Amino acid sequence: MKKLFAEFFGTFWLVFGGCGSAVFAAGYPELGIGFVGVAFAFGLTVLTMAYAVGHISGGHFNPAVSLGLWAGGKFDTKDLLGYIVAQLVGGIIAAGTLFLILSNKSDFVDIGGFAANGYGDLSPDGYSMTAGFIAEFLLTMFFLLIILGSTHGKAPKGFAPIAIGLGLTLIHLISIPITNTSVNPARSTSQALFAGGEYLGQLWLFWIAPIAGAVVAGLIHKAMFEDV
Amino acid sequence: MKKLFAEFFGTFWLVFGGCGSAVFAAGYPELGIGFVGVAFAFGLTVLTMAYAVGHISGGHFNPAVSLGLWAGGKFDTKDLLGYIVAQLVGGIIAAGTLFLILSNKSDFVDIGGFAANGYGDLSPDGYSMTAGFIAEFLLTMFFLLIILGSTHGKAPKGFAPIAIGLGLTLIHLISIPITNTSVNPARSTSQALFAGGEYLGQLWLFWIAPIAGAVVAGLIHKAMFEDV
Amino acid sequence: MKKLFAEFFGTFWLVFGGCGSAVFAAGYPELGIGFVGVAFAFGLTVLTMAYAVGHISGGHFNPAVSLGLWAGGKFDTKDLLGYIVAQLVGGIIAAGTLFLILSNKSDFVDIGGFAANGYGDLSPDGYSMTAGFIAEFLLTMFFLLIILGSTHGKAPKGFAPIAIGLGLTLIHLISIPITNTSVNPARSTSQALFAGGEYLGQLWLFWIAPIAGAVVAGLIHKAMFEDV
Amino acid sequence: MKKLFAEFFGTFWLVFGGCGSAVFAAGYPELGIGFVGVAFAFGLTVLTMAYAVGHISGGHFNPAVSLGLWAGGKFDTKDLLGYIVAQLVGGIIAAGTLFLILSNKSDFVDIGGFAANGYGDLSPDGYSMTAGFIAEFLLTMFFLLIILGSTHGKAPKGFAPIAIGLGLTLIHLISIPITNTSVNPARSTSQALFAGGEYLGQLWLFWIAPIAGAVVAGLIHKAMFEDV
Repeated sequence: MKKLFAEFFGTFWLVFGGCGSAVFAAGYPELGIGFVGVAFAFGLTVLTMAYAVGHISGGHFNPAVSLGLWAGGKFDTKDLLGYIVAQLVGGIIAAGTLFLILSNKSDFVDIGGFAANGYGDLSPDGYSMTAGFIAEFLLTMFFLLIILGSTHGKAPKGFAPIAIGLGLTLIHLISIPITNTSVNPARSTSQALFAGGEYLGQLWLFWIAPIAGAVVAGLIHKAMFEDV
Repeated sequence: MKKLFAEFFGTFWLVFGGCGSAVFAAGYPELGIGFVGVAFAFGLTVLTMAYAVGHISGGHFNPAVSLGLWAGGKFDTKDLLGYIVAQLVGGIIAAGTLFLILSNKSDFVDIGGFAANGYGDLSPDGYSMTAGFIAEFLLTMFFLLIILGSTHGKAPKGFAPIAIGLGLTLIHLISIPITNTSVNPARSTSQALFAGGEYLGQLWLFWIAPIAGAVVAGLIHKAMFEDV
Repeated sequence: MKKLFAEFFGTFWLVFGGCGSAVFAAGYPELGIGFVGVAFAFGLTVLTMAYAVGHISGGHFNPAVSLGLWAGGKFDTKDLLGYIVAQLVGGIIAAGTLFLILSNKSDFVDIGGFAANGYGDLSPDGYSMTAGFIAEFLLTMFFLLIILGSTHGKAPKGFAPIAIGLGLTLIHLISIPITNTSVNPARSTSQALFAGGEYLGQLWLFWIAPIAGAVVAGLIHKAMFEDV
Repeated sequence: MKKLFAEFFGTFWLVFGGCGSAVFAAGYPELGIGFVGVAFAFGLTVLTMAYAVGHISGGHFNPAVSLGLWAGGKFDTKDLLGYIVAQLVGGIIAAGTLFLILSNKSDFVDIGGFAANGYGDLSPDGYSMTAGFIAEFLLTMFFLLIILGSTHGKAPKGFAPIAIGLGLTLIHLISIPITNTSVNPARSTSQALFAGGEYLGQLWLFWIAPIAGAVVAGLIHKAMFEDV
């Protein structure tokens, strides 16, 4: 139960901090944080909560991570459903809290696309579904290779949250223009539920591509790097 | 006594560095550091002084942190008043020093809002009192969850100042547009005293919301994560 | 063989993440990541993969690094060719993947200069061949001094990937305007193959200058700092 | 002798990387790194070389640091002169190399103010001599408190280069608009020699203020925090 609370808080923080920095601060005139700031915000949510509760739950905060670790033989089948539910609940409540704050802004009209993910017409810079799928697949695959490698018994102890958190920063530096960067179905779902419409119709890609990439990474790690 | 000097220097540095970067460098034409730079500046004040004097005083530099740790059973009641006084004195002297430097600028007229915190009309981007309260409450709550979790006996040793400092960076990346980001009553008080007027009238929120969030985090940590 | 896969994945990630951030995200209107974001992206590719697979292959991801370590007596002659081939293959496949994603953008016409390196007319800010050579030589030399020094037995354990990764960030902060920053012949080759034309004609400099700088660093380290 | 080479290389890197990022990359149109990038560049020169050669020479790269550590009882009188000469030589040769690269730019006319430090008319944002003195004094004082505290026997082992390097980043985030940020007489001297004219006439402040701040920090640390 402690593990599920840890995953709940961690995923709340990932969505509140990452998506919150995007909707509140990215486009502020002249002084706004831009994509660089959003990229650091997402990464630092994971870095901070991985140090805070990683010793409790492992610090996944992401269904694709849980499934990738499971595929790599590092996470128990029986814990899978509970983790994913806790992640979804944490992410969705965070999105609701962002909506509540945003609707208390003096010039609030509507949330537009929120911080939802998309491809084609909904891609920030006009990338197709194919481009979005490749990017989400590959970036989540490398995210899991970083997670599995940096938490390996032969890697330096204690540094994994830095590698993993800043790895998520890097992933955002690359791909916000492509899909607004998901690599995390809980993050995508939380935003699509509020953005609605077409965003919900594209949500499938942000479950399938990240999970496929994560599972492939788990299998690669097990086959190639495990017994090193 | 050494502890109080450590808290004095640390809170001086937090206000001098964090608020100083905002008033001197954020809006410099074309090359200015913007909110991203201010966010890193605040975080790095805590990261640096937590490594420098954290082994002396614990490195709070913030009355909400002291009260949150006290609520979580990690800080003695008898030290509480001294710490908070040292933090306030350090912050206020830092604000005075910032004023002194700023008034030695060739085109100086007045300090305007300094780096004071505010809501409603004084919110940088027009967020209401309700939005400001929710943001300050939640962000301080997670700040304390990060502090309590990353200094826990099972967390990796030595990394807490990185998690805590960069956690404060993250908090600023999210919320400068909402309240100019406090999560620290000493920081808010130091600026409101110089900004005066309406800023003083709004100061109550930047004591109540952060402290409430910090205390709730202390209780959550004690109830859920302590015996892990 | 595991080592070669580690170098393949690491160099893929360096080119995909570093060059990818440049072509996808650097120049996005208003919110783009600029050279600061690209500099962090390159550095974080190395930081993350050095933690993930550094314990397998040493984490070179760069022919100049392999040759510099060899010159410094830290890398076996018999592994040299395999490493360099794996690095080139990883980099080139990454460049192909970047091309594939980019060509799936709605307004795609051609890749222009991709993220290729250049001097003279192809220097981002008009620096001559001499300037480019000096910069690439010196920056790679210091990159190797950082690598050799931070992995030395007397340096703090576990921190080398931070020093090395952020060292690559620093190198990009200095020199993107000069040559678009190489210090890595595999990265340069992967881009020049797609950018073609004049970029291929200038590729020699981005093999010779980085490798010369790296070898000099290896000799300096062996002569001056080895037995400390 | 190894120590002097380490100080030579470290100070070369500090000036080449920090001042180099300022003159090459800060003001590049649209994509330039601005003061945030310069701040990270300066900090990362120290972070990287402190991991690379800190175990050889202590990693000062700055006459004010050597004198502050001496005042704090952490550095031998007999090594003082050698260190300061090595730092000056390294900084000046780096400045010459920057000049050489810059003069190989197609539109080169003159170096203007280079990356020199100044106050009054030469302050980037019009701060007076008094403001400049206070800023340089206080920032160097805190820089030394960070150095002395984070290398103290009770501080976490191995993290000092992170605290010290990012401390220098923070110092630049605050004060580039005030004096272009020195806190290092070797860095200031290297630039003033090339910028010439009025910059040479103001150089005294960038020796006296940093050294005074550093020495005061050494005395504070010895008196207050040493025996903790």
